[in-house]
Amino acid sequence: MGYESAWLSYKENHTLKIPWNGSKIYADTWGKTIEAAVTELQRAVKEICGMDMGITGQEEEAGILLKKEQDNALGEEGYKIQCRDGRLTVTSQGEKGLLYGSFACIRMLQTKEEFSAEEKTEKPSAPLRMLNHWDNMDGSIERGYSGNSFFFEDNKILVNERTRDYARLAASVGINGVVINNVNVKDRATWLIDEVYQKELQRMSEIFETYGIQLFLSLNFAAPMELGNLDSADPCKEAVQQWWNDKMQELYTRLPNLGGFLVKADSEGRPGPFTYGRTHADGANMLADAVAPYHGKIIWRCFVYNCQQDWRDRKTDRARSGYDNFRPLDGQFRENVILQVKNGPMDFQVREPVSPLFGGMEKTNEMLEVQIAQEYTGQQRHVCYLIPMFQEVLKFRTYCQEDRDTVEDIVTGKTMGNTNCGIAAVINTGNDENWTGHDLAAANFFGFGRLCFNTSLSAEEIAKEWIVCTFGHDREVQEKILQMLMMSWKTYEKYTSPLGIGWMVNPNYHYGPNVDGYEYDRWGTYHRADHLGMGVCRGKKGTGYAQQYREPNASMYENVQTCPEELLLFFHYVPYTYQLKTGKTMIQHIYDTHFEGAEEAAYMADLWDSLEGKIETKVFERVQKRLAHQKEHAKEWRDQINSYFYRKSMIPDEKHRTIY
Amino acid sequence: MGYESAWLSYKENHTLKIPWNGSKIYADTWGKTIEAAVTELQRAVKEICGMDMGITGQEEEAGILLKKEQDNALGEEGYKIQCRDGRLTVTSQGEKGLLYGSFACIRMLQTKEEFSAEEKTEKPSAPLRMLNHWDNMDGSIERGYSGNSFFFEDNKILVNERTRDYARLAASVGINGVVINNVNVKDRATWLIDEVYQKELQRMSEIFETYGIQLFLSLNFAAPMELGNLDSADPCKEAVQQWWNDKMQELYTRLPNLGGFLVKADSEGRPGPFTYGRTHADGANMLADAVAPYHGKIIWRCFVYNCQQDWRDRKTDRARSGYDNFRPLDGQFRENVILQVKNGPMDFQVREPVSPLFGGMEKTNEMLEVQIAQEYTGQQRHVCYLIPMFQEVLKFRTYCQEDRDTVEDIVTGKTMGNTNCGIAAVINTGNDENWTGHDLAAANFFGFGRLCFNTSLSAEEIAKEWIVCTFGHDREVQEKILQMLMMSWKTYEKYTSPLGIGWMVNPNYHYGPNVDGYEYDRWGTYHRADHLGMGVCRGKKGTGYAQQYREPNASMYENVQTCPEELLLFFHYVPYTYQLKTGKTMIQHIYDTHFEGAEEAAYMADLWDSLEGKIETKVFERVQKRLAHQKEHAKEWRDQINSYFYRKSMIPDEKHRTIY
Repeated sequence: MGYESAWLSYKENHTLKIPWNGSKIYADTWGKTIEAAVTELQRAVKEICGMDMGITGQEEEAGILLKKEQDNALGEEGYKIQCRDGRLTVTSQGEKGLLYGSFACIRMLQTKEEFSAEEKTEKPSAPLRMLNHWDNMDGSIERGYSGNSFFFEDNKILVNERTRDYARLAASVGINGVVINNVNVKDRATWLIDEVYQKELQRMSEIFETYGIQLFLSLNFAAPMELGNLDSADPCKEAVQQWWNDKMQELYTRLPNLGGFLVKADSEGRPGPFTYGRTHADGANMLADAVAPYHGKIIWRCFVYNCQQDWRDRKTDRARSGYDNFRPLDGQFRENVILQVKNGPMDFQVREPVSPLFGGMEKTNEMLEVQIAQEYTGQQRHVCYLIPMFQEVLKFRTYCQEDRDTVEDIVTGKTMGNTNCGIAAVINTGNDENWTGHDLAAANFFGFGRLCFNTSLSAEEIAKEWIVCTFGHDREVQEKILQMLMMSWKTYEKYTSPLGIGWMVNPNYHYGPNVDGYEYDRWGTYHRADHLGMGVCRGKKGTGYAQQYREPNASMYENVQTCPEELLLFFHYVPYTYQLKTGKTMIQHIYDTHFEGAEEAAYMADLWDSLEGKIETKVFERVQKRLAHQKEHAKEWRDQINSYFYRKSMIPDEKHRTIY
Repeated sequence: MGYESAWLSYKENHTLKIPWNGSKIYADTWGKTIEAAVTELQRAVKEICGMDMGITGQEEEAGILLKKEQDNALGEEGYKIQCRDGRLTVTSQGEKGLLYGSFACIRMLQTKEEFSAEEKTEKPSAPLRMLNHWDNMDGSIERGYSGNSFFFEDNKILVNERTRDYARLAASVGINGVVINNVNVKDRATWLIDEVYQKELQRMSEIFETYGIQLFLSLNFAAPMELGNLDSADPCKEAVQQWWNDKMQELYTRLPNLGGFLVKADSEGRPGPFTYGRTHADGANMLADAVAPYHGKIIWRCFVYNCQQDWRDRKTDRARSGYDNFRPLDGQFRENVILQVKNGPMDFQVREPVSPLFGGMEKTNEMLEVQIAQEYTGQQRHVCYLIPMFQEVLKFRTYCQEDRDTVEDIVTGKTMGNTNCGIAAVINTGNDENWTGHDLAAANFFGFGRLCFNTSLSAEEIAKEWIVCTFGHDREVQEKILQMLMMSWKTYEKYTSPLGIGWMVNPNYHYGPNVDGYEYDRWGTYHRADHLGMGVCRGKKGTGYAQQYREPNASMYENVQTCPEELLLFFHYVPYTYQLKTGKTMIQHIYDTHFEGAEEAAYMADLWDSLEGKIETKVFERVQKRLAHQKEHAKEWRDQINSYFYRKSMIPDEKHRTIY
């Protein structure tokens, strides 16, 4: 299947003033990543400026220079860009820094940003900047909305031109780690660590390495039983430890670029240390010890909760479970273990509070896990630019210490001075021609990488970059798409579930409105709406979840007056007549936001329609179709949610609009 | 896979007084059906009485005699049984009558009914007594809850010993027609009328014929396009008519026992005459003309409705659609067309009014379609003996004429004096060891056949017969199982959706509670519950559905006072505080019936448990497991329904029981 170049589709721009002299590139050292950097520069300069750049061994005659230089402040991944006297110089201590610097120069060409004589220095914010693919070996993708996997097909590993182009896209925004298989490791995927797949993995890993990306795999904790002949996977049994030690030695011999492993254990039916009465620390440390000799990392997911809950039970609270499970283990994990924590305590809803595990753990490495696959935020059929949400999460103060206490500080290593930390995203790619199903969803892939690399960039700056790289320099196109992206998350929030309560979706699919869809189910996801009001009491008199935060957050959430209103129903049951700070009642807020949200969805469709002729027809029509669906689907959301609450409360809309 | 004999598992009973002399059977004519009758008698007498019955050509020395005799009152399927002077004589005009008479004698042996010197005459009530299998050619069964198909596997037709034993079971209760494939005819099933499958169909058809059963097939209306090279399936095009004529000539040459075809057209996505601007009559008549030379029948389903409805629309009413679509065509159908009408206007809910098409059509052959697969009535995991429901339907007076106006009269031919009429059931069998998943569900298969054969039998009489044939003569076993069967439908109704409103099930699966499951969907199936009340207004001020009935039914349903209360919410929106004839409010009725229903489910489980040791262990445990599930599941139904309505109405339970 053919595919497109996304934001690396360079647009010819011969009016661009080339800031360097001559047409030669010089590199003072060579290696496969530098070679890739040079090739990328050649290709971009050729396509954008129409200039063929040759390679020279003579520094003096070069217009573009890649120079390796000892500079601990920059590190292996940071870089300096300077353009002086007709020479554009990229400097780094490592090959990866030179590659990132080269992609930065290309982006500057794409966006017509001026090259300055002053040194422009950049160093990635998050040490680990990872993509998690939930790709299955049969080629399907769990929660994938843009076609099938380009890593797997019929239980075979695919390594081809698309693998390279994927790596180019990822590297261009600074991604340095990729987990290629689903965290739910079943059937053939368990065998990914077996010999049978190592040849293909080797080839894939080499491509990744060229682009500065470490290959990671998701592991099946029960592998010693399923692959080995062991009758147990007990992490405290010597035979099990030995099996893993041997397995890792075998793997790392063949795959030296293996970054490590991602593990979902004792969660939603996956096996784990609980089976043997062991802790998550026991489980993670056993694996960590096995990979330590090879500098491998174990990324252990904290998405652990009771998924066999009784809806009648108002004591058990799924939101509590991450903290309840992991907080007692703080300090017990090895240095090369990283806990991967979802941004919120539930599961990628359009609005959640930040997980109290951030700031709750003081002596444990943590990664932030976000999801750009839009499982609950429109599944790449609705526009939902998520970078503003991720920024809110990063800026959240945990009060774990006096300063450097935000989620950003924690996952970038500023809080504890650690380097085994970072940010991971469940990625939204598939083998669709445009990689992400919805063309505008590519902004999330691009934006995620850019944000991890430089957390000080604003969501708007990132969006602008992406738009220009993808659609070029037409001002109207830029402004309108920027407006669409920047409004999209709030718009989606408006016409879906209100005030942080979440989960009003069709079970399993997680798409489309269904207010009671999860209300009487086993997943611990309830709104508790009755005739008088709605919401879950998570304060001291309720489940006590709010007390998992440090002060003053705990008190802020505990108190209905100080609880941020966008999370009101997450923390409090309030009557429909409860007055919000806007002066509106809660029920009127629901009606108003749902009417507004549906109108905004229609407005976005209109904005796009007005760009006809300014955007490549194929792309224009692809997006137009999705926006038309979003517009209709937003009405369905509006009407179902409003009707449900009107029928329950019988409180009429003050504005007398039609509610069914 | 092994399988059991269901109600044909004869129990040894040597204390039985054998009413005939000697051990010889005599038949005055021979044919394969008579041969089958003799074989069945030999087998039963051997297994029950321990006596080997030989065959004799000398009438005088026979103890059992099968005699063909001209008797138009009996017809080909009726029979007389008389036992006098040590000779048990079965008489009929046809071979089928002799087979049915022989099975009747066997049943009398099983139930220890006395053979009388008086002539016992029986003639089947319904001319067509059919089973509709929704079996797909890949082996799956649509709405099948007892394993896979025993007719198809991997797009192949299975003909083996089980085919014969299935035919024996069906014939033993008087079934004379079987549609072997799903009414949704897709993919390979379209090819069933092609040459490639005719050899296997021939073999199957011959087995069926031996047991007096005609083979029917479900047709794809678009077959001329999919199998032929035609670019249209327009029933008014000569080429299309010719294609079908040729096809039928080919088919009937090879399959002379073919009874005809069942057609689902222009329904739920199936193709039909509407595509060409033609009527159902045009479509049905074209096929009828093609099969007429071979005495074939076209059974045309009336399950036609808009399945892309907007839930906001309160004008369109799915319940109206059968009548609206077919009533204008009354009198336009050929003599060999039969309209097959579901018992209710919706779709096999636990409680529905009778379809107004019964009595609504005056000059059209009609078949009643019921479903014993329990799609919406517990899916053969809950006990739900449906014969009482079918009897209510049959007894319903339509007032289409002064007398002989019941549904029974219509489908047995008494109303119009026709013979192309009858009753069909969507059957509940699969390749499970016990045929029907739930052992007690076999009572519905048995009972359906018995009821069609003799509509004057009571549900209780039928249940008693089945229990003795299946479980033997233990009095406690008989009484307790009878109690379970007789209470089961009402019990199921109590803990599921109340007062005739239906549809509070999980979408697609149709199992388990989900009050809003279909409320905001496209299927035209709504309860319209709000804070004040619930129900659909189907009177003159509403959708007008009630007016499709003849008087006095129309007025009875129109008036909330005279509307039967079990259908109250089907016809009327009433407030939760509406007082029922019991003096209870509607909401209190919901609470009470749901508590009662769950208690009754628990009671049934207890009843069964008390039979331990009296029933074969394997069977006992199989049923015990399902009853335990039913008991728990009934609680889930109770709690979800009660909580939903409590949360909506906030009217407390008068008895202060726990509602969540």
